[in-house]
This record gives sequence, structure tokens and C-alpha cells, in this order.
Amino acid sequence: MTYEKKEQMYEGKAKKVYTTNDPDVVIVDYKDDATALNGKKKGTIVGKGVINNKLTNYLMQVLEKQGVPTHFVSELSDRETAVKKVTIVPLEVIIRNISAGHFASRYGVDEGIVFAHPTIEFSYKCDELDDPLLNHYHAIALKLATQEEIDLITELSFKIDEVLCAFFKDVGVTLVDFKLEFGKTSDGKIVLADEISPDTCRLWDAKTGEKLDKDRFRRDMGGVEDAYQEIMRRVMGA
Amino acid sequence: MTYEKKEQMYEGKAKKVYTTNDPDVVIVDYKDDATALNGKKKGTIVGKGVINNKLTNYLMQVLEKQGVPTHFVSELSDRETAVKKVTIVPLEVIIRNISAGHFASRYGVDEGIVFAHPTIEFSYKCDELDDPLLNHYHAIALKLATQEEIDLITELSFKIDEVLCAFFKDVGVTLVDFKLEFGKTSDGKIVLADEISPDTCRLWDAKTGEKLDKDRFRRDMGGVEDAYQEIMRRVMGA
Repeated sequence: MTYEKKEQMYEGKAKKVYTTNDPDVVIVDYKDDATALNGKKKGTIVGKGVINNKLTNYLMQVLEKQGVPTHFVSELSDRETAVKKVTIVPLEVIIRNISAGHFASRYGVDEGIVFAHPTIEFSYKCDELDDPLLNHYHAIALKLATQEEIDLITELSFKIDEVLCAFFKDVGVTLVDFKLEFGKTSDGKIVLADEISPDTCRLWDAKTGEKLDKDRFRRDMGGVEDAYQEIMRRVMGA
Repeated sequence: MTYEKKEQMYEGKAKKVYTTNDPDVVIVDYKDDATALNGKKKGTIVGKGVINNKLTNYLMQVLEKQGVPTHFVSELSDRETAVKKVTIVPLEVIIRNISAGHFASRYGVDEGIVFAHPTIEFSYKCDELDDPLLNHYHAIALKLATQEEIDLITELSFKIDEVLCAFFKDVGVTLVDFKLEFGKTSDGKIVLADEISPDTCRLWDAKTGEKLDKDRFRRDMGGVEDAYQEIMRRVMGA
């Protein structure tokens, strides 16, 4: 089936979303725009849209093969992908294998502490409130998700961590932490949505510890484009 | 056994703690000092120390009768109580039955929403970090507690909520939310520590909704001493 791009439904920080001729499918169009600090820092990472589109699609297919349902339908072009139309569960899910970023600053610990077990955390997806951290009791009290949905999302997220850790390890990259979003399809199924890319994952070179992700942009470290390309090269050999 | 007050071990925001002639027992001495906003707001609530001492001891004995282990040993005077010496688990536990305070501001909802099920949350007890919220995965990764300790603390906290909700309801008070701290005795047992008072509980008059707790101090509402006395009167009939 070919999908025709119709109206723009939504423009986010890094992607635009369009309706198509199929009511259950939308087209995602990846931009080069980069934001950080919840939108307070803005910039462009040249070529990021193409890389994140291809990487996300590649990794979602890896996950599908391991039994993780995703929103992926088909890649349409360098920047465009057809995905299942979903209602996003308003929880950002963060899995952490190693301390970094907000975890380190929030709890006053160094970056780089390897956890005996990965952690999962939820934030309430709400820009005006700065995506506040919450736990599953809060999410249920706020009616953001049901206990069953949270249990399923938790199970899927740890499974995704397992698959991605092994995948990245094979290409010499340490998966430090990452953000996931899940959506509900029209028939009520929870699937992985959004993206998996250096925008949403902390990826460190396994040997040197060099940062190969958006922290280079957030922290003005330079070499941002090179880092994204390096991840693309290692993951997809291109 | 009589306990002799020896050296001051510690002075907190609302209490001093002294060693005694028994290495497993310390004496808590309740002050009238009040702080809020993590110490940024300071003041005095006249008579608070006496009220919080007596209320805490009374309610801890109510809880003991219902099978909740506490640090309570014996009341020594209006402001002084002998308690088991414990190592405090560095987690503040907050149980919420109704939205209020930080919950309402953090998640952008009104105060007064009654939850279908109470929520529990943990904060990392650390003034310099402003007691950041965390979940049990974080607490374990940070080695603040073990899974078994967290499971036990969770079970005890919900039990305490059940007992206290029923108790306060009988005296015309709605238990909105409250903070608990747990400690570990020298023989490794987890017991309820700290206090249970209008400093640590949000208590609303069941009929009028009037606030009868420290929010009157935090929010400069006046009538702070009267509110504490009213709770004392209703709980202890004195």
C-alpha cells in the first residue's frame, strides 16, 4: 500500500506528523531541529532528521523481531516513515543502566555508576510542568494510565533495554539510558512509538567513553553531527 | 527503667535528640521551632512541641495496637520521649489520600481530588538536594534501601494510612496526606520513627474542610496554634 501525505496534524520539536489516506496510519517527517532543556535551548543538527529516521526504523525492526510491538509500518523516504496512528500514553519512560544526566544531578551522584539492575522511571508528559517525575501510583491517581498498561509498559521497556543493550554492545557502544514513549492503536494495543536515536538515548563509545549522543549538543561539546553519523555508521554499517 | 539524658546527639528542625544511659534508647525533645519550604521559612508555633510530642506518642500507641512496630518506648515529660535508637532509612515516605501541596503543584491539578486508591511516594532525605522524589528502582540503585526493606515499608505505610484514616475520621478529621520516616533498630528491625503530628500530616476538618495543620504556617493563614490545639483536643479529648 502507498500512503499519501495529507494534512499536517502536529508539529513537535523534532518531527512533523501528517494524516494519510489510511485513517490508521500517519506519516512522520523528521526535522533537523534540536532542542534541549525542555525547549529553552534551540539549534540545528544538520542531517539529524535523516539519521534519526533511519536509525529508529532499523532499531524498531530489530525490536519487532524480538517480540516487541512497535508503531513502525514502512520507511517512505530519507526523512519520512509511515507509522500506526496511536494515542500517545502521556508518560515518558526512562530506562537507566548507568547514572548520567538528570539522575546524577537530581540525586547528587557522579555520572558513570553502573547499576546492578536497570531502573525505570516515568515522567508526566507535560511541557508546561517540565515533565515532572512521577511513580505508578501517581500515574494511576492522575488517570494517565491503568495498572495493566503500566505493568505492560514496564515489562516491554525492560525487554527493549535487554535487546538494545546487547545490540549496541555488539557495535562497541554502551547504552547508558534512553527515553521511550508508548501509544495505543485504534484497537487498544500498546505499542512502542516515538523514536530511538541519539536524541533519545545516551550512547557512549564502549572503549573511550566518548559521548555519541545529544549531550554533545546539550553541553556545547562540539562534534554533534559527527557523533550522530558515527552511531549511524556503527548501527547500520553505512 | 528510668532514662537519663546524656549528650545531645543531634538537633533537627523540630527536635533535639539525646543519648541516654541505655545504648539502645535515645530521648527526643520536641521544640516549638517551625520551618517550611525546606528550611527557607522559619518561625515559632507556641506550644507545638508539647502537642506534637503527646500526639505522636498517642498515635504510635494506637498503631502498635494494630500491629505496626514503632520506635516509641515511653513518654518522659510534656516535650520529652524515650524512643528506640534507630538508623533512619534515608527515605521520606509520603502517603496521599487526596491531592494537595506538592502533588497538586507538581502535576498541575487542584487540591481536594479524592484518589480511588492512596498513593505512596519516596523522597531521598537530603536537604542539599531538596529531598528529591525518587521511586523504588532509584532507591535501590542508590543503595538507600533494599527491595525487601522497601516492600516492608510500603506495606507498613499503607497499613498506617488505613489505621490513621479510620482514627481521624472518628474525630471528624480528614487525613489528606502525611509523611513517615522509618528506622532500623540495632537488631535490624524496621520500625516507624519520627513523628505523626500536624507538622507531618495534612488534616482537614471533615465538615468544613478547614485546614488544621502546618499549611496554616506555610501559607501564612493565621490561627496556627489554634489549629494544633484543636487537633490535640479532638484526638486526645484534652
